[in-house]
Amino acid sequence: MAKLNTSTPSGFLEFSPAEQRVVQHWKKTIAEIFEANGFPMLETPLVERSENFEAKGGNPKEIYVLDRLRREEAVDQDKDIRAVRFDHTVPLALYVARHFNELAFPFRRSVIGPVMRGERAQKGRFRQFDQCDIDVIGSEKLSLANDAQMVAIIAQIFEKLMPEQKFVIRINNRKILTGFFAAFNANPAEFKKLLDFLDNLEKNPNAKLAGHPIEFQERILEFVETTGTADEILEKLKDFSDHPEFVEGAEELAEVVKILRAMKVPEDQWQIDLRIARGLDYYTGTVYETNLVGYEGLGSVCSGGRYDDLAKVFMGKDLPGVGISIGLTRLLWQLFQDENIKKSLTDAALKKNPHIIILSRDNLLLASSLQLGEELRSKGFSVEVYMEDKKIQKQIDFAKKMAIPCRVIVGENDTIVECEDLELKARIENLV
Amino acid sequence: MAKLNTSTPSGFLEFSPAEQRVVQHWKKTIAEIFEANGFPMLETPLVERSENFEAKGGNPKEIYVLDRLRREEAVDQDKDIRAVRFDHTVPLALYVARHFNELAFPFRRSVIGPVMRGERAQKGRFRQFDQCDIDVIGSEKLSLANDAQMVAIIAQIFEKLMPEQKFVIRINNRKILTGFFAAFNANPAEFKKLLDFLDNLEKNPNAKLAGHPIEFQERILEFVETTGTADEILEKLKDFSDHPEFVEGAEELAEVVKILRAMKVPEDQWQIDLRIARGLDYYTGTVYETNLVGYEGLGSVCSGGRYDDLAKVFMGKDLPGVGISIGLTRLLWQLFQDENIKKSLTDAALKKNPHIIILSRDNLLLASSLQLGEELRSKGFSVEVYMEDKKIQKQIDFAKKMAIPCRVIVGENDTIVECEDLELKARIENLV
Repeated sequence: MAKLNTSTPSGFLEFSPAEQRVVQHWKKTIAEIFEANGFPMLETPLVERSENFEAKGGNPKEIYVLDRLRREEAVDQDKDIRAVRFDHTVPLALYVARHFNELAFPFRRSVIGPVMRGERAQKGRFRQFDQCDIDVIGSEKLSLANDAQMVAIIAQIFEKLMPEQKFVIRINNRKILTGFFAAFNANPAEFKKLLDFLDNLEKNPNAKLAGHPIEFQERILEFVETTGTADEILEKLKDFSDHPEFVEGAEELAEVVKILRAMKVPEDQWQIDLRIARGLDYYTGTVYETNLVGYEGLGSVCSGGRYDDLAKVFMGKDLPGVGISIGLTRLLWQLFQDENIKKSLTDAALKKNPHIIILSRDNLLLASSLQLGEELRSKGFSVEVYMEDKKIQKQIDFAKKMAIPCRVIVGENDTIVECEDLELKARIENLV
Repeated sequence: MAKLNTSTPSGFLEFSPAEQRVVQHWKKTIAEIFEANGFPMLETPLVERSENFEAKGGNPKEIYVLDRLRREEAVDQDKDIRAVRFDHTVPLALYVARHFNELAFPFRRSVIGPVMRGERAQKGRFRQFDQCDIDVIGSEKLSLANDAQMVAIIAQIFEKLMPEQKFVIRINNRKILTGFFAAFNANPAEFKKLLDFLDNLEKNPNAKLAGHPIEFQERILEFVETTGTADEILEKLKDFSDHPEFVEGAEELAEVVKILRAMKVPEDQWQIDLRIARGLDYYTGTVYETNLVGYEGLGSVCSGGRYDDLAKVFMGKDLPGVGISIGLTRLLWQLFQDENIKKSLTDAALKKNPHIIILSRDNLLLASSLQLGEELRSKGFSVEVYMEDKKIQKQIDFAKKMAIPCRVIVGENDTIVECEDLELKARIENLV
């Protein structure tokens, strides 16, 4: 038999054991914050009928479908083309369409799980990656308080996961941009191109907008580069144009800012940035991007916005919604490239999820160690009992290789607790 | 445009919003118990090279592979056949082979996530389903304490998730069965067929073992139907045969029982059952099945066992391991078929994950409601703030449809807490 190639398929990432600790800690923390804000987890199948993905603008060149390894021998014939989800938004739209009458609106849900895109394999781009999404869907009008809540939740997540790291959530409203274009008589058919141009401005500050007069280009640039505090920008927008869409966008943005302040989201965690366009077609109002200060090269680490016709193609009904998404796999992979960040993230994950190991000086003491394990577990600790018949030094080496920060060594006459965290040490010593 | 078919593809299940609450509660609880016992979550890609799955005995007729929706247009060509995992065990073996030098042994990991099998579509059988697995892998010998720990963990899970439900974990050792066959001079090539025969005995008690003398059939049946307490069965096994494999199996079983008692796993939660064979080829020692008393028709709700050559085909090395698996999707789907069980599981999930909703008598009070929401959340509650400008009765109807057990109604002069759980009510009243 030829030797097997046991490596992961190209573009499919697998984290190392130490990295997995961080990934799981982030997933758990993000899920808890979503849940604590009223967004329970809700899962949909990994695959849907491909016609539904294509109807919602999935890129057919990147869509994976399921086939059989040996189609001719398959135990059952499959009639529909089952496409693997490329995001969580289209499956959400299908879920809402399928369960509309069972749902209460506004309907909030979170999801953390894999999606697949058949992109060109390259460093830092993966064909399977975890996305962490929340969305709130209305059956009619949906309050702008929901748009503000998204900002509050992004802030809670990065505050909790990277307490030492400054971040900024940049907010804009698409109506301000499209209203601006309309006010300057740009052709609506060009709006998409204009939004993409703005989206790319940060990466390519010298890009030119072919086919538009220099004067128009200058006015756009002058406009989107309006800076200042949120209040200063909102004040400037008031006088800028009386185009109804522009005015509506500016008023919505002002309302979101007002609610952010009611929610007491710290002022240094968010700002208005008129350059944020989010090229994705479906956004219609508020849009967000989030940057880690000092790591702007990573791009936006959490983005989203408001949309109006989530499920129209599936149920002929306009349902407004607003949502955000964290591309977790890509974000953590990028952070892990820096050994210092990786170490601090790993240490934090271990500290937040303390894990005790119980070692036995002699294997004859295993029964006592197992009982002690049950006792500590019943007090809420995560406990691993080392069960193999090995010399104590081998056991300690194992605990060190596993980076388990707290060891309890059971001896015939004494039980010793060795723990870097002195508070944890004292708590355990009280129990053994 | 033709109307889209928005239903899920055949064989791909989607739980209703109420059912999802239960699914998430179970996943979270199971993950916590795994983690608390020293089995951190570790994830592998959804796909692997198909050659590796085939080498480990995956059924090629049921294996799904990834293809492109429009292969001729794909942005990148894929050279390898990427097969979707059909269990978590083969991906674990690949992970161990790939990361052998980074791992410390015994290596414990848990995983909760989807696998796919292209089975014939039929009621209660799904092509995508979640499996919850733990395994411990040794690099050399692996103590039988690990086999006992699996039983303790199964017991913790069902005690926690179905506290009113009796369950029994049935334990056997494959060496007892194969040693018995060998002692009666059965042809080793027949062992697999004999094990399958035993596995089917409960479903088909009148099945006959074609090709074997009646006398041999009678002796097998007499043997596997040996009943009694664990001690009685172990005592009978001592005198039954001196075939070395049989004796080894009986001694291993006795050792597992001894450790179960040291771990104080209640005696009514487990028993020895010599009929448990687990047809899967790779088991070599301890095997388990778990039944819900009164719901034996569901079959085993958690099964597993010990194996010896997990990764041999991938790395030319024998690695012993022991693991268990819960087929969560199928189990919960079956339980949900009974409306009473479904209601009690849903109530339990809501009670364990209490969720507060804040309503505002007037939308002008929304800022106060949002602030109160932040305060309650900072105290560890899951809080949803109703943000839409609706009459209070509509808001209460929403809370009821969502089955949110605790409402806080913010008024201009007073804040009222309405909560079925009086203890929770008192805790919240202290905070508002």
